[in-house]
Amino acid sequence: MPYGYTGRILHVDLTTGTISDEHPSESFYRHTMGGSALGLHYLLKMVPPKADPLGPENVLVLSVGVLTGAPIGGLSRVIANAKSPLTGGIGDAEGGGFWPAELKFAGFDAIVVKGISPKPVYLYIKDGEAELRDASAVWGKITGESEAMLREAVGDKRAQVLQIGPAGEKGCKFGNILNMSTRACGRTGMGAVMGSKRLKAVVVRGTGRPEIADKDKVRELAKWGRDNLEESGAWGMQLHGTAGGINGLQETGALPTRNWSSGVFEGWEKIWGQTMTDTILTDRDTCYACVVRCKRVVETKEPFEVDPLYGGPEYETTASFGSYCGVDNLVAIAKANELCNKYGMDTISCGGTVAFAMDCYEQGILTQEDTGGLDLRFGNAEAMVAMVQRIADREGLGDLLAEGSYAAAQEIGHGAEDLAVTCHKQEYPAHVPQAKRSLGLIYAVNPFGADHMSSEHDPSYAPGGGESIERLSAIALNDPQDARSLNDEKVRFALTTQYVYSLLDSLGTCMFVWGPTWQLYDMEQLRELVEAITGWRTSLYELLMVGQRRLNMMRVFNAREGIAREQDMLPKKGFIKLAGGATDGVGIEETDFLQARERYYAMAGWDENGVPTEGTLRKLGLEWLVD
Amino acid sequence: MPYGYTGRILHVDLTTGTISDEHPSESFYRHTMGGSALGLHYLLKMVPPKADPLGPENVLVLSVGVLTGAPIGGLSRVIANAKSPLTGGIGDAEGGGFWPAELKFAGFDAIVVKGISPKPVYLYIKDGEAELRDASAVWGKITGESEAMLREAVGDKRAQVLQIGPAGEKGCKFGNILNMSTRACGRTGMGAVMGSKRLKAVVVRGTGRPEIADKDKVRELAKWGRDNLEESGAWGMQLHGTAGGINGLQETGALPTRNWSSGVFEGWEKIWGQTMTDTILTDRDTCYACVVRCKRVVETKEPFEVDPLYGGPEYETTASFGSYCGVDNLVAIAKANELCNKYGMDTISCGGTVAFAMDCYEQGILTQEDTGGLDLRFGNAEAMVAMVQRIADREGLGDLLAEGSYAAAQEIGHGAEDLAVTCHKQEYPAHVPQAKRSLGLIYAVNPFGADHMSSEHDPSYAPGGGESIERLSAIALNDPQDARSLNDEKVRFALTTQYVYSLLDSLGTCMFVWGPTWQLYDMEQLRELVEAITGWRTSLYELLMVGQRRLNMMRVFNAREGIAREQDMLPKKGFIKLAGGATDGVGIEETDFLQARERYYAMAGWDENGVPTEGTLRKLGLEWLVD
Repeated sequence: MPYGYTGRILHVDLTTGTISDEHPSESFYRHTMGGSALGLHYLLKMVPPKADPLGPENVLVLSVGVLTGAPIGGLSRVIANAKSPLTGGIGDAEGGGFWPAELKFAGFDAIVVKGISPKPVYLYIKDGEAELRDASAVWGKITGESEAMLREAVGDKRAQVLQIGPAGEKGCKFGNILNMSTRACGRTGMGAVMGSKRLKAVVVRGTGRPEIADKDKVRELAKWGRDNLEESGAWGMQLHGTAGGINGLQETGALPTRNWSSGVFEGWEKIWGQTMTDTILTDRDTCYACVVRCKRVVETKEPFEVDPLYGGPEYETTASFGSYCGVDNLVAIAKANELCNKYGMDTISCGGTVAFAMDCYEQGILTQEDTGGLDLRFGNAEAMVAMVQRIADREGLGDLLAEGSYAAAQEIGHGAEDLAVTCHKQEYPAHVPQAKRSLGLIYAVNPFGADHMSSEHDPSYAPGGGESIERLSAIALNDPQDARSLNDEKVRFALTTQYVYSLLDSLGTCMFVWGPTWQLYDMEQLRELVEAITGWRTSLYELLMVGQRRLNMMRVFNAREGIAREQDMLPKKGFIKLAGGATDGVGIEETDFLQARERYYAMAGWDENGVPTEGTLRKLGLEWLVD
Repeated sequence: MPYGYTGRILHVDLTTGTISDEHPSESFYRHTMGGSALGLHYLLKMVPPKADPLGPENVLVLSVGVLTGAPIGGLSRVIANAKSPLTGGIGDAEGGGFWPAELKFAGFDAIVVKGISPKPVYLYIKDGEAELRDASAVWGKITGESEAMLREAVGDKRAQVLQIGPAGEKGCKFGNILNMSTRACGRTGMGAVMGSKRLKAVVVRGTGRPEIADKDKVRELAKWGRDNLEESGAWGMQLHGTAGGINGLQETGALPTRNWSSGVFEGWEKIWGQTMTDTILTDRDTCYACVVRCKRVVETKEPFEVDPLYGGPEYETTASFGSYCGVDNLVAIAKANELCNKYGMDTISCGGTVAFAMDCYEQGILTQEDTGGLDLRFGNAEAMVAMVQRIADREGLGDLLAEGSYAAAQEIGHGAEDLAVTCHKQEYPAHVPQAKRSLGLIYAVNPFGADHMSSEHDPSYAPGGGESIERLSAIALNDPQDARSLNDEKVRFALTTQYVYSLLDSLGTCMFVWGPTWQLYDMEQLRELVEAITGWRTSLYELLMVGQRRLNMMRVFNAREGIAREQDMLPKKGFIKLAGGATDGVGIEETDFLQARERYYAMAGWDENGVPTEGTLRKLGLEWLVD
């Protein structure tokens, strides 16, 4: 076959303990590019509407893209899809590391898991063979310990371990799935689904290598990446990690502070990536074959002891446990990050939920009695860290907060509902919609809830926006210069770049390496890479149709669950006028938002309820989804 | 400016005799790529609904693309747009030659002509300067004479002349616009519009050269073209011209015969391109910088004298005066071609109209009295040639036939209406919809009527279809294997490749050189060329959005005229079962066609009446066309 993957899908029924495999056609891979669109295909075929996300009918698909396994950076990504226990709609989360490449080396593109195992198990895959094994010994263990024990159990130090932590086992609605105890498929509670199935881990070892149609071209692109790294936007990622951009966000009033009341945080410099570099950073880590090395490793003793095994905080983590909570203590943030990685929790939703609880506490909706004695005011680093541990342990208020801020707010009542900052019940990531308008629209309409990696951030607002527009115009032909508007240009920009990022989640590429603006490689180089690896003569038109296809598959999945326009909404705090800094007094007019949403639906080819029309589905080759 | 065109539009008001120019922004060029989409922009802004196509309110735009003028083949194309007197809707026609490159060398990208001159004039453009001059001396002259006289008048043998012939002057509804007396903007009667304005010609001379962002890359692509010509599908064009494929069409039952009653013609070998090569061919001609050399030159003395100045017949011409009319006399076909080029008539519509008249004659609807004594039976070569001359002269029945077969049929009555083979009142080009299903759909829905260069022909049916699908999949990701169906795959294929060809008409590229299947260069090379010439980092996604934009602009233009679903129909003969050969007994079921049309509208983002929805217009940056 003239393309670079093995073409095997592993099917696992945990209820019966049976395993089988499938060899899809080339056109199936080309239609989906692997990854998220491939996962959605199985979910739409296998999961009945209204299925319990934590019940046996839900299906969890772990997949890689058609590019994964090639020796060049930004391709080793695993995508988790299932019905989400957090949002009630489609779930989707991506993570890096070495496990994704290892799965390809072992001969598989995806694992489709259904049913519930009668007892905890793990799946062991080695070079084309797979078996389910007893996981009693590691059930309940934190990720670092579990990983070591599983490698010991299979007798292979080079085995890669993808797993859930105790939070996922206990059904925390933002439980995640990690490999290397640091690379998380973070969002939408995919770890809770895996936990509900009593599947602790997937341990993989492979010694094969996928075929590559044009090895010279891949080598040439890899060399180009090494040669141009220092001039690219990705270089800052290596130097100071993703938190290196906090200064720009502070400057533009786009740093979410004290549960989204402000876009500026007076303690920003203390939690800045540069500060991390100068203080607690001990190493920079990477994923398979990647030269960017954006991952942080930190080690601290005081006031909290942080184990370097669990890495260091990303920007998202830094903001959610930092500025969201008014906390300017970087060591406390690093500790919260370590706890999330030990117990397997999404740092964004966890931090957002703690910030929500702090807001409730500040406003007297929660008392010290409710918090089990914690003085949960904004800025209290110790209370923040303690609350993270309680969520992981589901202890006291932590048990409720483990359901996520939306569900907790419903339970708490008394105005708490107005303080949960979620779309589709999922907590905002760390970018302010009042500042980045088109991103705010995507928060609302994105099928798996508020997300910062499902479209490009407004280049009109971000520093360096001029150059971004220049490069993006090749994709979107937009000129969204007006920072404060949600006009047609902004909506078109949002939708078009949503197709781009939707594609990246199917190809399984890292958005710090391949993408439309500030990444190391641009979209045309990505097209060349697809051609070089698969041997397909492709175009960005074909590729963006895959992105569009995935987005529409997600909308159909949600429509079957009754999720559509009514849920495509910003929370109350998403509209408020922010206080201080460059966005002082800046809110979002609800009428503007509703008009933009209406136009977004229309441009996307959806009906007024936000459901793909028959024509749109047929255009995308999804006629099998027409009812 | 980092792009390779001068960015000047010439505006001419013939009523007042005033001339001005305009320097549009870079984004305007990028939004349209020049050519047809640029022309449509002016028509939509300037022509009021219900304007008389031959009145002063109509506007004629002559344009070239952003690539035109670069020293590589297939870029020297002129596009004519105006409201069509033939169809009553949007008009659009493209032609090659040297004039298009010369216009760019003279510093202009387009000429926008409005009003009606009180007396015959021609426009003379030299190196950035333009003036209107008296054309009394050449008014009424055949093209070859007029061209020589105009070169003499401006005192420059190297001046390029774009002009109409006597047919356009006399309002023949399929009057065309030619340069070199051979390169025609053939279809939709653009010559009649130019004639109604009393604009005989545009004479151009330029000594400048457009800037090119990356000359080395253009040179590299040109060299690649030379090196790979003999292995490409374009090589057959050089050897035997476009009529070299007649054997394949005969074999597959796709050669239109005796006014579309059959897909096979027993005299096919006598009119075949190979036969032309072996008999009457004297030379091969080309357009600016092109290595393909597809143009024929023929010379004959008996039984008709054909002047080589007027070239030789294309496949379309060969079929329309040949198999359409049951004529197997290649010299007669060459004569009809020469007459069309002398008098300025579209060979497809002219031949189709003669074939229609022959069908009427055979069925007794027209008599020898009506025909002025001509025995207009199928196969009578002399009568065919005589009738072409009478149409050019508007003599007798020729005066009526000069209105086109649709209008003539309405006038003739008595069942003649069922014998006119038109879509949107324009005669079918020489490809059989019963054989090429997706093309048949495009015949019906194409905004400027039946056309064979507005989408790709079914690769499932054409010989070599396997390879075509392989190359096309990079654009359309289709698998339209089922020759006899009009299923979703076929509709998707039709729509997607319509975007491709719509783009090519805006870029102003020749479809024998750049395109998705059998051309010399493929679409990815075209993308590279756009980048090399303009300096824009572009993508096939951006480019196909231009194609989509142009198509939607045309649909809006027609909707304003009240032209929509009702006109998107095949004629009665389009549905009939063909007789003989591989398509014996093959018709099109009207229910299949109507379902395909409905799905085509839906996939295109149009309402059930075939009008672009507001969302589709906004998606394409055409919000100014939302009513």
